[in-house]
Formats: sequence, structure tokens, C-alpha cells
Amino acid sequence: MKHLLSVGDLDRSAIEQLLELATSFREVTRREIPKVPALRGKVVVSLFYEDSTRTRISFETAAKRLSCDVMGFSVASSSVTKGESLRDTVQTIEAMGIDAVVMRHSAAGAPHRVAGWIDASVVNAGDGCHEHPTQALLDLLTLRHRIGPGIDGARIAIVGDILHSRVARSGAHAFAALGADVTLVAPPTMLPSTVAGWPVTVSHDLDAVLGDLDVVYLLRIQRERQRETRFPSLREYTARYGLTVERAARLRPEALIMHPGPMNRGVEIAAEVAEGPASLITEQVENGVAMRMAVLYELLGAGGGHG
Amino acid sequence: MKHLLSVGDLDRSAIEQLLELATSFREVTRREIPKVPALRGKVVVSLFYEDSTRTRISFETAAKRLSCDVMGFSVASSSVTKGESLRDTVQTIEAMGIDAVVMRHSAAGAPHRVAGWIDASVVNAGDGCHEHPTQALLDLLTLRHRIGPGIDGARIAIVGDILHSRVARSGAHAFAALGADVTLVAPPTMLPSTVAGWPVTVSHDLDAVLGDLDVVYLLRIQRERQRETRFPSLREYTARYGLTVERAARLRPEALIMHPGPMNRGVEIAAEVAEGPASLITEQVENGVAMRMAVLYELLGAGGGHG
Amino acid sequence: MKHLLSVGDLDRSAIEQLLELATSFREVTRREIPKVPALRGKVVVSLFYEDSTRTRISFETAAKRLSCDVMGFSVASSSVTKGESLRDTVQTIEAMGIDAVVMRHSAAGAPHRVAGWIDASVVNAGDGCHEHPTQALLDLLTLRHRIGPGIDGARIAIVGDILHSRVARSGAHAFAALGADVTLVAPPTMLPSTVAGWPVTVSHDLDAVLGDLDVVYLLRIQRERQRETRFPSLREYTARYGLTVERAARLRPEALIMHPGPMNRGVEIAAEVAEGPASLITEQVENGVAMRMAVLYELLGAGGGHG
Repeated sequence: MKHLLSVGDLDRSAIEQLLELATSFREVTRREIPKVPALRGKVVVSLFYEDSTRTRISFETAAKRLSCDVMGFSVASSSVTKGESLRDTVQTIEAMGIDAVVMRHSAAGAPHRVAGWIDASVVNAGDGCHEHPTQALLDLLTLRHRIGPGIDGARIAIVGDILHSRVARSGAHAFAALGADVTLVAPPTMLPSTVAGWPVTVSHDLDAVLGDLDVVYLLRIQRERQRETRFPSLREYTARYGLTVERAARLRPEALIMHPGPMNRGVEIAAEVAEGPASLITEQVENGVAMRMAVLYELLGAGGGHG
Repeated sequence: MKHLLSVGDLDRSAIEQLLELATSFREVTRREIPKVPALRGKVVVSLFYEDSTRTRISFETAAKRLSCDVMGFSVASSSVTKGESLRDTVQTIEAMGIDAVVMRHSAAGAPHRVAGWIDASVVNAGDGCHEHPTQALLDLLTLRHRIGPGIDGARIAIVGDILHSRVARSGAHAFAALGADVTLVAPPTMLPSTVAGWPVTVSHDLDAVLGDLDVVYLLRIQRERQRETRFPSLREYTARYGLTVERAARLRPEALIMHPGPMNRGVEIAAEVAEGPASLITEQVENGVAMRMAVLYELLGAGGGHG
Repeated sequence: MKHLLSVGDLDRSAIEQLLELATSFREVTRREIPKVPALRGKVVVSLFYEDSTRTRISFETAAKRLSCDVMGFSVASSSVTKGESLRDTVQTIEAMGIDAVVMRHSAAGAPHRVAGWIDASVVNAGDGCHEHPTQALLDLLTLRHRIGPGIDGARIAIVGDILHSRVARSGAHAFAALGADVTLVAPPTMLPSTVAGWPVTVSHDLDAVLGDLDVVYLLRIQRERQRETRFPSLREYTARYGLTVERAARLRPEALIMHPGPMNRGVEIAAEVAEGPASLITEQVENGVAMRMAVLYELLGAGGGHG
């Protein structure tokens, strides 16, 4: 494995192997000194063309716990303002002997193009509305530790603006790859035209599917997208698709609740629900570090990278 | 000690203990390799919602000298621009296994709220016009090394815009806690209405108190506050409250001069005075690293933090 | 050697020594773990008042490979926005026990002034249109590894906007110091008035000199300077001074091509030429890390710095 660009690059056994590795790194992160020398001397650059405190801290923490040297760059302090092309930037980074580039970009496919230009490993940390593979992997890790090693047959609904969600795209494919039964729940305006090709069922009615679910996965409503998706108001969105206290009460008792964060409390999820015992939201974040350690180790360990 | 939010959280013996610890870290910082493995594997995040080169470098240097892993975030590169709430940001950081958050925020009380939400340690690196406790502690460390272990009875004047100064608020209480005799010197428009409850004397006339002081502590004039404090002009401020060369000549020969930086030379302090032998300003900065090492060690060492 | 501010500070033997040292660090950077403990505990601050991903990553990678602790600050997250003076900023940094400041600033001479104010080492990472000494040194390292230890008598043309180029100024002097025969090729509007004092020949006609060159060194066209240099259009620039495929074909077979990056492909250099076998552009970047390791080691190693 050279790059991690898309969930589609991983078959079931590759996913299983990352889950095993991440499970062992979960133990490392709970030690008194949560650090291993596995990737000492490897250099990881986090290159974020879009802001993201949470994803960037998660990757940088993961890299530091593996003893990598880490350099972080965000757009504001990068030479992109000089008109330097993406290609020049990453070829330059590569020529310095950097081992991996963790990259977020607003353009779908940008990490794929970068991977074609350089020998260093590329990790897609989110590209436009396209993919966010480490989010899907950490979600699988979280489910595995709550509902056991197999998620075969688990009924998972992903609810919200599927059209603009890289989390939905990566998650739907990853959950299905491990045998889950995935339903996308959204109004027609929030579904991509390509959804017929996805390994999922589609519903426009959360209330109709609610009582059968093992997992409700809520997407963040991006307020700035509201016009594009022609959804009349946040209030109406909540009324039809929000996981309110009332709806949560109609879930099966053992049903679990997930959200990639950051949440709009009171919009797609009620605050009480987000903080209740069925919520896996904090575990998702915690598992993010372990899963990103697994991905970096898989790409750079044991002879990977430039070393 | 779990958090450092306010000078008021520390009694005299807690302050004495931090001063002892910082004194030993001063020795570390003067070694050929000024670094100890005390906090290896601990992760410290500096989360600055307001710009500050000096405070951020000081904390990050302190953390690195204790062998922490350090990640720095400033507003520009954080997801606050996405509308993520402070609570979500810090709970996310916490879930990643971060041990301490060093936080600067424009809202008074923000670090206190954060401390209520998370298990990681919170260090207040300045909250609005409220508190800046490590500044007060490094000032005490500086005085202790110049005027001996006790500052009981030392006459200290804090001069300037007390109303908007977190340095004044933290300093006045810390100096008084160790027995100093503190006078606030400011025009009435630059004093908070609550000053009657502080352990201090108030004067509006620097010239009247000047000859009796052991220490003159000058505050930075924040030009952007001038309208709020209804002070007519910088020139008039300097004429009445600036430590000019003339005024410095009327100080007692052993009197000392302090300023938290950055200075407006020629406004609250003359350049010649700032660089003269009575000035402790450079020592204050130097002691900042040692004191912040002491604070981080106190919070995270010997079983503190997540480890 | 205390600071590296200008190529003119280095005599031939000092340059030779840095080239030797950098050659040994090139070997380090190719190891499985490309890291040495040489500068453990030294603290390097990169202080960039102008954006530059490439130079900043190069210096930070170099510092980390020497086991320094590195802190990076760019303008956006610094207290310069508070009106803190450059002098206060660097004196503060110095008082914290920082060992070296790697500095980029838009004002020519800024690093020289800083070196006069502080005891820590200062490395000029580019000051206005003035100097960029590590660029010149890495270019020498690159040439040495391609055309042998001596560049005496090598015919090198530096082509482009000499007037605004710190790379040209540093490079011309460094190449000449090692015995190369340097020609500046530019329209009269892109030459500084002081060029008569440089150790170079001047030409306005690239085609006239092309066939005799051992090395063509192309400068980046800075589009934002176009008005100042009164050059009619990019197309006309390329027609007269660009290294097009046609011109490259008229070079001597063993001639080499350099560019400091980032490139404007299709303006000063054709993409095919930049990526052809005569191009040293990627090696320049790679050698940048080794040369910056050499500079930091020379300044801070073996008793240098504060330690």
C-alpha cells in the first residue's frame, strides 16, 4: 500500500488488516507514555488547503506518537498565495525527502493527481465533496469495538446532505464492503445523481426506517450549502431529518448514534442525544488517532517511505 | 493541581512550590542541552484565538524542553471559521488524548468554561481583560531572583490601563498574596469599578508615589482602547503616567522596573529606561520559559495528565 | 561563524567548508533513519514575514534532521499585527533562550539589523530584493556534485529580472567567489544600477551567449513586478529571454539548467526543459535540506548557540 486516496482502493482484507493494526495502536495510546519509535526519522507534512483543526490535530498527534517529524502547513502560510502550482509545491516537498503528505483540498481528486506526481505517500484527508477515507476507517474501528468484529448485516442509515458529503461517500462504501446493509436517508435534493451505482438503499423518510436501525449516522448540515440544496430552512430540516429526542426514543434500545463532527447541536442532532449513552461520537474522535497511526504505519513502516 | 486558570486558585504555598520548581528549571534552561525527558509522550496543544508570538513561543519552548509533543493552532488555521463551537473544539481535542490545552481567548472566562468541559488540563494563557496567571508567576520568579526569596512589604506600583489589563489583575493578586504592598496608579477612567475589592491601594498620581517604590510595573498602552478609556492623547498619557527619563531619575536607587511587553517605547516607558540597569524586562521573558515549564510539570508530571 | 546574512560574509575557504559539511549531510539524508543527534536541545525559530512553503519546509526539515526543536511562525499568527516592533519580537525570542532565528522579511537588510540586536544566530532566508545566501550555497552544492569539485572557469548565465532578485545577487557573488565566469542576461530595465560593481559580465541578448554556456540559471518572473520593470508582456519576455525548447536545443550537449523555483512553466522555462535530463531543478531542492543542515550545524554545533 503506497497511498490512501479512496476507500475503493481497499479490499475487505486490507480494511481488516488496518483495523487489526489500529486496535493495537489503541493500546499504545492508552499507555503511560503513548509513543513508539516505529517511524523515527520519517517526515510527514500536513498540507491543508482547507481549515480543519480536528483532522489536522488528529493526524499530527498520530504521526508524533509514531515518532515521526511533523510539519504542518495551512494555506494562509503557504506559497500558494504566490501562485505556485499544486504540482510544484508537492514536487518540491517530495524532493526534500518528505515521506508522506497528508492533504486536504477543496478540489475533488486533488490527492489523486498529487499521487501521480510524486513518490512520497499521499493520504487523502478530505478532497472536496469526494472522499475522506480515514473517517470511514475510524468509523469502522469504532463500530467493531462496540458491536463486535463483524458488522455483517448491521443496518446503518447515513442521514443528511449526501450530495456534498465526502464522509457519506467514503462511509457508505466502507460499511458496505464489510457487509453492512446501508441506507441513505435524505431529501431528493441532497442526493447525488450517481447514487444508483452505490451499494446502498435510498429513503427519503427517516421515520419510516428509524425503528429498524442498528446505527444512525448523522451528517453535519453545512449551512453555506443550504441554497444549493434548495432546502427551505434549518427548522424544516430538523423536523424531517434531525435526530431529536423524540426520534431517538423510537430507536431500538441497542441502536448506536454516530456523527463525524463538528455538530450543529439542535439541527441534525439534539444536544441530549449527542451526549447520551448511545452516542459513539467521542469514541469516533478517540479512534481517529489510532486509525491514523495505523494508516501511516502501513504506508511508511517496514521499508515504506524514502528510508 | 489540575488546571491553571486564575491566580486566585493558588494559595501562598502553591505559589511558593511553583517558584521552587521554576528555579530548578531555570538551571535546566542554562545547560548545554537544556532539555529533560520529564514529560515525554505528553501532548500539549496551544490554542490561540488571539495572536501572540511571545506567549506562544514561550509556552511551546517550555513544553519542548520537557520533551512534550507540541501542536500549535492559531485562529486563522482552525475550524472556528466553520462555526465549530469552542465546546466541540476542545472536547474533540480532549478525545484525541491530548494532555493539556494552553489557551488564549478574547472572552474573559473562556478557559474556565473549557475546564468544566474536559478532563485534560487547561492553562489560561490570557483571557480577554480578565487573567494571565503565568505572567504573574513569572514576574514573581523575576522579583524573587532580584530582591530575595521574600517580597513581603515590597512596595510595587502597577501603572496604566488597569481596566483592560489581565496582567494587572493577575499581578496585583499574586504580588499581594506574597505580602507585597501593591498600589495601582491610573486615571479614574482606566480603573475597573470593582477595584475596591482588590488587595491594593489606588492612586491617580504617579509622581506622588514614585519616590517610595521598590518596583514600578508599567502596563502596555493598547492604542486601540484609547477611545474606550476616554484618554485624550498618548502625549498626555506619557506626560502624566509614562516612565520618562526624568521620572526614572527620581526613583530610589535600588528601585526596579518591569513591563510585560511588548512595549510602546516613548509612550508608557522611555527607551533609555527600558534598556537601563534597573530594567528587569529581559529577565521577565527569560523566566517565562522556566515558569511555564514549572506549570506544565506541576499539571502533567508525576501521574498528571492522561498517562 | 555566528550569523549567515550575506554571501559576502563568506570567503572561499568558508564556502568550501560548508560544501564539505553539506556533502556529508547529504549522506545522512539518504539513510534509513535520516537523523542525527548533533543539535539536540537547540531551539530554532523560523520567523517568516513573507510566505514561503518551500524555504520554510526546507529549513524546518534540516533543523529536525539535526534533532533541533523547531518552532515556526508566520506573519498571520504573530504579534506583528499588534504593532510589536521587529526589535521587540526578536529580543523577546532571544531572551527565551532560542539558539537561532531563520528569518525571511520583505525589507532588505532586516536580518542584518536583527543580528545587531541579539546574541542568537541569525540566518537570512531571504530579505527583500537583497540576498538569499542559502539558495546560492545549495546551488553551489548542486553544481559541485554534477560538474566536479571545482567550478573554476565554468560559464554560468543568470537570466531574468536581476533587479528584483535576491537569488541573482547571492548567486552571482557565490559563483564568482568560486571562480566561475558569470554573465547576467536581462533587458536594461531588469538590471540594478549597481551592476557595474558586481564580478560579472552583462548581456542583453540570451541568444548571443547561449551556445557558450555550461549552466543556464533562470530566474522566476514575478508577475507582480511587471509594471515596475516596464516589460511589455510575458509573451515578449518569453520570446526574448525564455528557455524555450528551441533555445534549449542550441545549448551545448553537456550544459545544465537551474531554477530556484517556483517556476512559471511556459514563461521563463518550457515545461519540457524543466523536466528534461539537463535540468538540476529537483536536485537543487534536495540539496537545500543538506546545505541548510550544514549552515545550522556550522552556526550552532560544537559550542555554538547558547549551550
